[in-house]
Amino acid sequence: MPDDRLTRAESLIRSIPDYPEPGVLFRDITPLLADADALRATIDAMIEPFAGTFDVVAGIEARGFLLAGAVAIAAGVGLVPIRKAGKLPRPAASVDYALEYGTATIEAHDDIRPGMRLLLVDDVLATGGTLQAAHTLVRELGGEVVGTSVLMELEALGGRAVVGDVHTIFRA
Amino acid sequence: MPDDRLTRAESLIRSIPDYPEPGVLFRDITPLLADADALRATIDAMIEPFAGTFDVVAGIEARGFLLAGAVAIAAGVGLVPIRKAGKLPRPAASVDYALEYGTATIEAHDDIRPGMRLLLVDDVLATGGTLQAAHTLVRELGGEVVGTSVLMELEALGGRAVVGDVHTIFRA
Repeated sequence: MPDDRLTRAESLIRSIPDYPEPGVLFRDITPLLADADALRATIDAMIEPFAGTFDVVAGIEARGFLLAGAVAIAAGVGLVPIRKAGKLPRPAASVDYALEYGTATIEAHDDIRPGMRLLLVDDVLATGGTLQAAHTLVRELGGEVVGTSVLMELEALGGRAVVGDVHTIFRA
Repeated sequence: MPDDRLTRAESLIRSIPDYPEPGVLFRDITPLLADADALRATIDAMIEPFAGTFDVVAGIEARGFLLAGAVAIAAGVGLVPIRKAGKLPRPAASVDYALEYGTATIEAHDDIRPGMRLLLVDDVLATGGTLQAAHTLVRELGGEVVGTSVLMELEALGGRAVVGDVHTIFRA
């Protein structure tokens, strides 16, 4: 997708060495988000392959919420938060998944209904564990994931092999 | 603001007794967010008094992120996350504030720049402590808060007296 606006947006992503630990190069997307044109171009690119195919966008806590809110308005759909354990008053489904050390849990309300078509969004595709768990969560509630759209893919971490088909805008 | 779409949006807010503890009536906005028309009407109402006066919208972690992403696209502005302590790689400012028990800290990057005009958004105005701290944070970075817009105000908790001028769409 040759697009000057996306090239400029990508240039705003900041690389921070040795964060959160020595040897890790952290990609900080906050300067991109803070720029109105870069944000809009990126959100449009995240939606584009799936336009008209989804009823709701689901965002994964916490940075995925920023993008899901933006996608919801740009695409004219509703918005469902997928939250970490213990944050929702009435979780209708809950999925545990492995982290590098230990496990984590994500939950959703019954706003995800049988037959609903969802676009899943998040900021970064790393190992893919959280997104894979989110797919399972949506299926447990009877929803259909029509696509997964992620702002940035960290290719060396192999998440694409875990999540399967995923649309990513920037790669590192 | 007599508006049938807002009346319908308000009817989607769910009251959950005894959450997160006995005697508390929790207001759950997730059914409103999941409805495309209710979400759009609510976001438009949050922006309306401030349209054209702000360069960036700042959202407070975590539910404020959902609304800030939506406001950013609806208003055509950039987006700045105000995060809990320890989540940002390069916090440029940090503000501690009191909770009912103990203290909390919020941080922001230097994407908030001197002279920038910000709209602050969050989901619920309760005691107002977090929003008051967010005002302080923006000022420390040289930014100007042109307004504070909150989806739901819990009037009995008195946050309005703490935050000062705040625009709220729904009240309970």
